[in-house]
Amino acid sequence: MKKINLVLGIHNHQPVGNFDFVFEEAFQKAYLPFLKVHKVHPDIRLAQHFSGILLEWLEKNHPEFIKLLKQSVSKKQVEMLTGGYYEPILPSIPEQDIVGQIVKLTNYVIEKTGYKPSGLWLTERVWEPYLPRPIVRAGVKYTVIDDSHFKSSGLQDQNLLGYYVTEHEGFALNIFPISEKLRYLIPFQPPEKTIKYLRSLATDEGDRLIVFADDGEKFGVWPGTFEQCFENNWLNDFFTLIEQNLDWINLISFDDALSQLKPLGTVYLPTASYREMMEWALPVNAIKEYEGFYHWLKEKNIADYQFNFIKGGFWRNFLAKYPEANNLQKRMLKSSNRFQKLNSKNTELVKARDFIYAGQCNCPYWHGVFGGLYLPHLRNAIYSNLIQADAAMDKVEFKGKEKTGWVKSEIYDYNADGFGEVIVETDRMGLFFSPNKGGSLTELDFKPKAINLIDTMTRRQEAYHQKLYEMNLNQHNSGKGEKVASIHDLVLTKEEGLEKYLNYDWYNRTSLIDHFLHPDVDLKQFAQAQYREQGDFVNQPYNVKIVNKDESAEINLERNGHVWIGSEFVPLYVGKKILVGPGADSFTAKYTLKNTNNSAIELWFGVEFATSLLAGNAADRNYIIPGVELEKTNLASIGSVKNVKKIFLRDDWLGIQVGFEVNRTAAIWRFPIETISMSEAGFERVYQCSVIMPHWKIVLEPGNSWTVVIKESIEQL
Amino acid sequence: MKKINLVLGIHNHQPVGNFDFVFEEAFQKAYLPFLKVHKVHPDIRLAQHFSGILLEWLEKNHPEFIKLLKQSVSKKQVEMLTGGYYEPILPSIPEQDIVGQIVKLTNYVIEKTGYKPSGLWLTERVWEPYLPRPIVRAGVKYTVIDDSHFKSSGLQDQNLLGYYVTEHEGFALNIFPISEKLRYLIPFQPPEKTIKYLRSLATDEGDRLIVFADDGEKFGVWPGTFEQCFENNWLNDFFTLIEQNLDWINLISFDDALSQLKPLGTVYLPTASYREMMEWALPVNAIKEYEGFYHWLKEKNIADYQFNFIKGGFWRNFLAKYPEANNLQKRMLKSSNRFQKLNSKNTELVKARDFIYAGQCNCPYWHGVFGGLYLPHLRNAIYSNLIQADAAMDKVEFKGKEKTGWVKSEIYDYNADGFGEVIVETDRMGLFFSPNKGGSLTELDFKPKAINLIDTMTRRQEAYHQKLYEMNLNQHNSGKGEKVASIHDLVLTKEEGLEKYLNYDWYNRTSLIDHFLHPDVDLKQFAQAQYREQGDFVNQPYNVKIVNKDESAEINLERNGHVWIGSEFVPLYVGKKILVGPGADSFTAKYTLKNTNNSAIELWFGVEFATSLLAGNAADRNYIIPGVELEKTNLASIGSVKNVKKIFLRDDWLGIQVGFEVNRTAAIWRFPIETISMSEAGFERVYQCSVIMPHWKIVLEPGNSWTVVIKESIEQL
Repeated sequence: MKKINLVLGIHNHQPVGNFDFVFEEAFQKAYLPFLKVHKVHPDIRLAQHFSGILLEWLEKNHPEFIKLLKQSVSKKQVEMLTGGYYEPILPSIPEQDIVGQIVKLTNYVIEKTGYKPSGLWLTERVWEPYLPRPIVRAGVKYTVIDDSHFKSSGLQDQNLLGYYVTEHEGFALNIFPISEKLRYLIPFQPPEKTIKYLRSLATDEGDRLIVFADDGEKFGVWPGTFEQCFENNWLNDFFTLIEQNLDWINLISFDDALSQLKPLGTVYLPTASYREMMEWALPVNAIKEYEGFYHWLKEKNIADYQFNFIKGGFWRNFLAKYPEANNLQKRMLKSSNRFQKLNSKNTELVKARDFIYAGQCNCPYWHGVFGGLYLPHLRNAIYSNLIQADAAMDKVEFKGKEKTGWVKSEIYDYNADGFGEVIVETDRMGLFFSPNKGGSLTELDFKPKAINLIDTMTRRQEAYHQKLYEMNLNQHNSGKGEKVASIHDLVLTKEEGLEKYLNYDWYNRTSLIDHFLHPDVDLKQFAQAQYREQGDFVNQPYNVKIVNKDESAEINLERNGHVWIGSEFVPLYVGKKILVGPGADSFTAKYTLKNTNNSAIELWFGVEFATSLLAGNAADRNYIIPGVELEKTNLASIGSVKNVKKIFLRDDWLGIQVGFEVNRTAAIWRFPIETISMSEAGFERVYQCSVIMPHWKIVLEPGNSWTVVIKESIEQL
Repeated sequence: MKKINLVLGIHNHQPVGNFDFVFEEAFQKAYLPFLKVHKVHPDIRLAQHFSGILLEWLEKNHPEFIKLLKQSVSKKQVEMLTGGYYEPILPSIPEQDIVGQIVKLTNYVIEKTGYKPSGLWLTERVWEPYLPRPIVRAGVKYTVIDDSHFKSSGLQDQNLLGYYVTEHEGFALNIFPISEKLRYLIPFQPPEKTIKYLRSLATDEGDRLIVFADDGEKFGVWPGTFEQCFENNWLNDFFTLIEQNLDWINLISFDDALSQLKPLGTVYLPTASYREMMEWALPVNAIKEYEGFYHWLKEKNIADYQFNFIKGGFWRNFLAKYPEANNLQKRMLKSSNRFQKLNSKNTELVKARDFIYAGQCNCPYWHGVFGGLYLPHLRNAIYSNLIQADAAMDKVEFKGKEKTGWVKSEIYDYNADGFGEVIVETDRMGLFFSPNKGGSLTELDFKPKAINLIDTMTRRQEAYHQKLYEMNLNQHNSGKGEKVASIHDLVLTKEEGLEKYLNYDWYNRTSLIDHFLHPDVDLKQFAQAQYREQGDFVNQPYNVKIVNKDESAEINLERNGHVWIGSEFVPLYVGKKILVGPGADSFTAKYTLKNTNNSAIELWFGVEFATSLLAGNAADRNYIIPGVELEKTNLASIGSVKNVKKIFLRDDWLGIQVGFEVNRTAAIWRFPIETISMSEAGFERVYQCSVIMPHWKIVLEPGNSWTVVIKESIEQL
């Protein structure tokens, strides 16, 4: 009888910072029903991976689930895989953290299930060839990777019925190819099709192996799959059918496959992740070109193996594509490096290490068809963990200075963009300035609440935005009852008319951005980034000098730039002196504008600030302008006000109030930054931050200067 | 006036172990005339890279050249680049060796030229994204990489007029894209075409930068280029034309470009090397498919940017493609790891470290259009250095045992192929056995002469072999006087009728390979690997047991396999017990064949041995069979002899004689293994090793055993 070996593997994960109701929904719709169906099929062996985050949540919220899981393990129904505890993209984190995160999950899995995993779930299957070193050092024997990675090396389907050995510096790791074909059959096609496919691969020798491994959320969470898998009994039918064919399908665990079968050979995989992700990692124009080329090739009916030579981009370029992702990742490296430099044996630092690990969860570091980077609550969770890590390390590094407070400032290229940044840290705050980009403030950490208040996104073109124009919005596809489509084929939207919100920024949204407006500009134009800027200060280099004093740090940012006055581009000096003191929950920026020309100039000067408080249109998030009654006060509202000196953004949910105060009465514009991005559930509009801009119309005589002091302060409610 | 910045860079290298006359020829035809022409163009600034190997050779053989170079440096005509001292493929060697090799070359360059390099020549432009860490740790600020690498990340020509920043774990490295367009213009097209191209890129801002960087051997060594560059004055004309246009071409050094120009942004490059090499790294069938697909796309006239999505293989897969390259690289890792484990501060070990570094020279680790791996003298140089490194480490590790000698044996998967190897080391020899592949002997190091005597190649199909059939051999293309073709377009051959030598082996050529021949087999069939094998012992697993005794190591290899007797596949036991003693320049293999069937069986048993002595058809390399007068005695000869007990392979040039002695009179076959491979100069036949096979016709009664003892010994002449 012709036989074949089969491994079935399931990966389950929820990101750090995800809403509790999302965990619960995934539990009710996927994890629990899956386990229940599995339970009544004792002969079905599965490999299961749960990220540490999810396993912790399950233990806390549904301890009975962990018990059931442990039972399945003891009955050998389930073998457990390890992975990075907080599901980090491995090459995005330092090598010692890769080892640490894997060991942490391995130990946790042993503790909770009694199973000692020797296989690793590779986060998002993002592979780089140096990874065997940290992975093997963490005690892992094998991992599972998409077959497309292997095909990139010139191997073909017939070469992939088994497993291979790869290595780096002699650290040898076994790697199992995941069948893309099975990924598209399960659970989207009738179970018989899987059986038929397996039958076509079975041989007399029976030494072939094929691996299915995919997200557990595909069984219940993805649109239409709950109905498919559980209401229509797909999963039960599938398991039943497998059981009926166990005479020739040898359902085997990874661990057993490794000890019973020989490797097919040695192979080296290039930098790769799954096919779709490699496309998303391309620059936006390249995605369009790639898609066009790909469809053209499809039309030409080229052979499957020829598609193996077609490759998209490289995961790490999400960092080049999105400065926000880059800053997040480099911020994380900064905390991790700091941890390494401090004595890592210090027990007080164990907490810091766990915060750093939690701050490495992959989800907001990139963006494809899932919301990822565009989701403020996920980014916030990362920053929150990293700031808590820093606060824990502060306790060690600045021991004894708790009462007086402290300030430390330095300049270096923390985000590896080729230009030095100024980083000011105090016992209360962290401020990151980019002298090269308009002397702007790119990060504002408030340690008591562990929040970065400038954690926003810039509105950029995404390749998929085109679909918003193209799609017929009347054809909403709820997926219900219909044949279940793969998530990649769906075009859904949560709101109609989203294309009207598609504004693209020409500079990065941060704070302390110095604008000189054309007299005709109005608030709407400005909010849409479709206005005439007269100066060259927004994203051009400022010179910087740091003056460290005992009591405070002083950052002097200066630019001798230009403004358009009529048809002339005339010189203008802008200086901003930032003062940050110890123990303070505020900083001040003292601006000096100087007219170095021979004639008077009229300026319309504004300083832009971003504040990200997680939700805009909520009853407990509001603007307050003392003495002014606003029509709409929520943080997603747009509006302007004149002759004021103060404005507050109050967030009762977070318990925080951010205030801006100027020493000259100003007009203030306020508006939200909202992005249109893709998530599993379709297109959605996401509130990223509120922008406020105090502004002044100034006439500046030759040789004269004009000054204003702006103070941003944070208050705990 | 529209301006542009231009960097010109030249990379010069000769491999470890290359013949002295090749160095000298390259010196006379390329390095010297280039420098002389450059000398008379004082305004032409160049970046120059010399591998440490070549720089050492120049200093020893042409110290006047180094003086001239130093003068050019002091006149700021030349900036020097660093690199790996022995030009290793960086990702093929351990990270600490990357750092060590770069620091070694940097120091040497400073010492010899007075220039402190801050840029790195990346060997063969083989890039992996973790490299910034060791490269930056070695004190390097930038490197130069093919623009095709950048295009793989979705960037296009217009994005590549400058330099970028990349990083790993925050180690930031600047990277300059090399223009592929300029690589094909210089020196193959009239100089005016380069000027015209530069003109098309120049802008009013003048802040664009374009980089030419390529092999110095393209100026004089490659076919036809000496005539082109020097006899026809191409280089002088080119420099003159550049000089005439220095009002708008800002010829700049890399170092100055780095300090004067800003980076264009951040980018991450995937695993890549130059386009052609990525094709060569594919498995042979995939190369054919890739070429077919590529040509089809060319015919369809797809756009340049679309070709950026077409990618070949990955450098490391040369190791998967050629077990010989894998064994070489893992052997090197083994020595390097051993060095790390010993106290690296020990001054006696500095020598060992340099031998290891020299053993990392890239050339024989891969094979494309250059001979590389197929060239025995290059492989030999690597093994020689590694064996010398081991001998130097022996002195430290086995101090005090010089008189008695010593033996050490262990089993582990040194070459990361998924199966354990047996490694026996003594004060005199090193023996590597592969139990999984027929219990064969894959490496035989003789330490006193620092040679691996089983350093051969298996004859495999290469994608380019097809051209041998296709080419019209009458159309030899000498390249003389004609338009100079790029090396990739040439089809040359050093010998006619090479296609007749195309034999492909079905098992790896090593020693102690156990054959059972069909009665009809003759020597020619066997030599061509086109014969009927009756047993399953050649490349199937043997069980292994190591018995370590004080006086010797005993390796017991056993297989209960089968032989075809008529139409029956009957069981047969083959055992071979290997004995290796301390201080000995020999080992013995005691074979036992046992008939476990109920009837007598007739066997034709032979044991194959490979011996590689660098040259076959040479007057000072000969077979000697005591008492027998051979018609041809050179090591490339084919022949058979009967009723002998001894055969010797004598190499007077190496001063070594390898002997085989059996305790039963045997017939012996002998023949050479010759490969047909590609080199710069075209197809060539290369002698790889001599195979000898003592063989016996045996009738084995049921339950009976038959034994023979074979001794291989090495004698210094």
